[in-house]
Amino acid sequence: MDNWRQGLYAIIFHTDTPAGQRFDNWLLLVILASLVVVMLDSVDAYHQQYATLFNSLEWAFTLMFGIEYGLRLYCSPKPLRYAFSFFGLVDLLAVMPAILALVFADAQYLMIVRVVRMIRIFRVLKLRQYLSQANFLLTALRGSRQKVTVFLVSVSTLVTVFGALMYVIEGPENGFTSIPTSIYWAVVTLTTVGYGDITPQTPAGQMLSTLVMITGYSIIAVPTGIFTAELASAIRGGDHLKHACPNCQKAEHEAAAAFCNRCGQMLYPQQPARD
Amino acid sequence: MDNWRQGLYAIIFHTDTPAGQRFDNWLLLVILASLVVVMLDSVDAYHQQYATLFNSLEWAFTLMFGIEYGLRLYCSPKPLRYAFSFFGLVDLLAVMPAILALVFADAQYLMIVRVVRMIRIFRVLKLRQYLSQANFLLTALRGSRQKVTVFLVSVSTLVTVFGALMYVIEGPENGFTSIPTSIYWAVVTLTTVGYGDITPQTPAGQMLSTLVMITGYSIIAVPTGIFTAELASAIRGGDHLKHACPNCQKAEHEAAAAFCNRCGQMLYPQQPARD
Amino acid sequence: MDNWRQGLYAIIFHTDTPAGQRFDNWLLLVILASLVVVMLDSVDAYHQQYATLFNSLEWAFTLMFGIEYGLRLYCSPKPLRYAFSFFGLVDLLAVMPAILALVFADAQYLMIVRVVRMIRIFRVLKLRQYLSQANFLLTALRGSRQKVTVFLVSVSTLVTVFGALMYVIEGPENGFTSIPTSIYWAVVTLTTVGYGDITPQTPAGQMLSTLVMITGYSIIAVPTGIFTAELASAIRGGDHLKHACPNCQKAEHEAAAAFCNRCGQMLYPQQPARD
Amino acid sequence: MDNWRQGLYAIIFHTDTPAGQRFDNWLLLVILASLVVVMLDSVDAYHQQYATLFNSLEWAFTLMFGIEYGLRLYCSPKPLRYAFSFFGLVDLLAVMPAILALVFADAQYLMIVRVVRMIRIFRVLKLRQYLSQANFLLTALRGSRQKVTVFLVSVSTLVTVFGALMYVIEGPENGFTSIPTSIYWAVVTLTTVGYGDITPQTPAGQMLSTLVMITGYSIIAVPTGIFTAELASAIRGGDHLKHACPNCQKAEHEAAAAFCNRCGQMLYPQQPARD
Repeated sequence: MDNWRQGLYAIIFHTDTPAGQRFDNWLLLVILASLVVVMLDSVDAYHQQYATLFNSLEWAFTLMFGIEYGLRLYCSPKPLRYAFSFFGLVDLLAVMPAILALVFADAQYLMIVRVVRMIRIFRVLKLRQYLSQANFLLTALRGSRQKVTVFLVSVSTLVTVFGALMYVIEGPENGFTSIPTSIYWAVVTLTTVGYGDITPQTPAGQMLSTLVMITGYSIIAVPTGIFTAELASAIRGGDHLKHACPNCQKAEHEAAAAFCNRCGQMLYPQQPARD
Repeated sequence: MDNWRQGLYAIIFHTDTPAGQRFDNWLLLVILASLVVVMLDSVDAYHQQYATLFNSLEWAFTLMFGIEYGLRLYCSPKPLRYAFSFFGLVDLLAVMPAILALVFADAQYLMIVRVVRMIRIFRVLKLRQYLSQANFLLTALRGSRQKVTVFLVSVSTLVTVFGALMYVIEGPENGFTSIPTSIYWAVVTLTTVGYGDITPQTPAGQMLSTLVMITGYSIIAVPTGIFTAELASAIRGGDHLKHACPNCQKAEHEAAAAFCNRCGQMLYPQQPARD
Repeated sequence: MDNWRQGLYAIIFHTDTPAGQRFDNWLLLVILASLVVVMLDSVDAYHQQYATLFNSLEWAFTLMFGIEYGLRLYCSPKPLRYAFSFFGLVDLLAVMPAILALVFADAQYLMIVRVVRMIRIFRVLKLRQYLSQANFLLTALRGSRQKVTVFLVSVSTLVTVFGALMYVIEGPENGFTSIPTSIYWAVVTLTTVGYGDITPQTPAGQMLSTLVMITGYSIIAVPTGIFTAELASAIRGGDHLKHACPNCQKAEHEAAAAFCNRCGQMLYPQQPARD
Repeated sequence: MDNWRQGLYAIIFHTDTPAGQRFDNWLLLVILASLVVVMLDSVDAYHQQYATLFNSLEWAFTLMFGIEYGLRLYCSPKPLRYAFSFFGLVDLLAVMPAILALVFADAQYLMIVRVVRMIRIFRVLKLRQYLSQANFLLTALRGSRQKVTVFLVSVSTLVTVFGALMYVIEGPENGFTSIPTSIYWAVVTLTTVGYGDITPQTPAGQMLSTLVMITGYSIIAVPTGIFTAELASAIRGGDHLKHACPNCQKAEHEAAAAFCNRCGQMLYPQQPARD
């Protein structure tokens, strides 16, 4: 019995066996199918025609996710730790919508839960080959966290000041009805999105807008520059040996270096020969 | 006879003779001319006035492309392999529109075929000097494939979640008629395109939009960073010292290595001391 | 007494004591709260309902900022130098709005002052851990100042010429009412903001717009490239070998130098041969 | 007399004397003033009120530019070469508008000439300190010319194919009235400008648009990457000694290197001592 449980554990939680990969592929398919159903369900025309079908499918998905959740709980060696882990909670979330729908009438908010359970896609992807690449990106993001904070605070200050200025210059009669709305406009403009739902009408406002746009167009270089520099250093840094040469202190060497290539010093003291 | 066939082959398939280059230039001109005709034909005013002219021109181009296709088949040493190669199929496609138009009435869809045959431009360009530069770009793109996949999956998840949230917050009365439509809005916003055909109306929606815009404005740094880092490394690629170590024959070293870092041997004999 | 003044000075002006950090945190909170009040005050619905409350809060904030300003003047060892420093003036500005409101009736312009005092956030942040990161960014920005000037002059010329061309091509009947307006359109287009409040209607105008957009889309690479290259070089800055040559004392060498490139001396003594 | 002519030449054509700089500053001012007059003249309200003033100013500027052009011709050592040089023609252009206005009635097209003469700003700037920085940018641009060509051809093909597809999918009833118009839409979307004057209405069109936007958002990385890599190499490349070491062939050295820092070889054969 226990053997069977361990086999199940390998299939459900690991991905290095053919059976485990097949399980992951099916899970991915079911998650995407449930997502498609939620999307179609939100289109009014389809909803009115196929409401019953969508409802049954939702229950079918709930049943599948429920069985999966049960199996995970059953075969996990530490069920409690799993249940309260991040993905354990996401898995539980996947079962909730249909059940909560029995209690609450407002289907709108449940839709978000039904979409959010799509985050489980990352559980499947996480176990695949992309992990190391994502790690590269995360390392670069983490390395640039402080610089990004400085950048975001500056941008926030900029849009607040620009927003307040435009509120005073253009005023409510041109669509800038309040400072928060003007800040919304400043973000729309600075990020070069440019909906056009609020646009400056006065020459002074257009002149200031020009300034905001040029600023936004130029400072996009800042996050790009930060991230590129960090990523380049993350890529370059990854495969090097970090061990200072005992003779000349050169800090970085090729991954398989035995001698320092600046001074010829052996990097690690030679062991007495084994015989 | 066979000699003449080989000469024709050199003219049509190669580009390193003056005749071959002249042929390529003429082909480029005909392709562009056929493209211009399709474009003008799609303008209603021109279509009504010059329909017959455009039709004759289409037949003239078809004739030319047909002769070219026949000659390629005739002079190619392996006609079948050519016929089923990528460019062989594209060449065949170039002959189809006018012929298909006799069978099918709907000229609309044929227009796409008539435009798509413009891809043959790449056959002409491919044989020119830009090949090596395109290779640089392709190497960089291939190197960043995995990182780009991670990026695209993350972006897809983001727009889906943001779209669902906006659908619930703003609702159909503000233009967010369904989750797919909301996802379309999220893509329009995240990529900083910002048509303005759907815009948030409620304060909560505008606040969330602000978040989406800042996110989109910031994460554009990610593909840029990935690609720049890869391109820089592709350009720097040949940056290693290719000099076999005289002791252990290790073939490649860090750019500035003075000693082999596998055996500690000096890579270049030291010059006799100056006195 | 003087001791107490010095203690107060440490709390208010420095941030390396627990009390100083607590003071900074409270100051940050009050600044943000005063900002929120200004924002809500600008929303018409809230203004009509809570005008008195907002007014009292404004006076409360003025009182707090006033006390803070007084204390800063009192405990500063050089009160005059503080009063005329940049942050001294910003601190004074923070006290002005409510007082000026007694004199001037037009509350609109005072709103800007009430928003601008938010710049004091940087005083608080400045004293924190982000300083060194901001310095990195500033170094990169300073290094690219001249290149950015060339870039901005070129962009200004481009939008002026494009604007004048569009004014002539499209004319007032299509919304391009004057050259300044057309320049505004050119900036909106070149920076890829694209409000859509003014759009080209004629084929010639659309063709020129296409050119403007492609230009804008391409030259965004220029500030990004400038800044990235500068930032990378600012980060790489300390990347040189600091080891005085034992023969000629040249202090700095290329990162991987084995020999001094001024006198040919080996930089590190070679280890005795292994046998 | 000839001395005076040479002095004049130094003032007008050079910038390294105080008088020359003063002349350049005044010229810059006059050019900008003439530009401002053209701009204001294009605003209908100002034109109706100040038409006579603007006309007189235009004649004043023409007179000044005419005198300047005459002086340049007079004091230039090779007047003909100057007259047919790029800036000679631009200088001549600066005198034309008011004179041409006597012949042609249509003031609209003369406006472009009156704006284009602003290019003379670059004559003034060219002689200043920014030259070397602009050279950096130009070197990087020239180095990336081929890659940029590949990029632009690919983008042109993309927008043509996307445009044709959208024309067939959406059709004239949704604003995609012809293939050229659809290509205009594709450029607006791909470059993330997003006016919103033409937007997809059908689900299929919105799906394809999503693809276009994601493509545009991603491939902006390509020119950025190309330019950044080139600029970084232009900055890094400038101050190095390109002379292969006669012993180990290391190709690049620090600007002042006397010995190769990889193998200690003297880079240039020592001359016999001078005595």
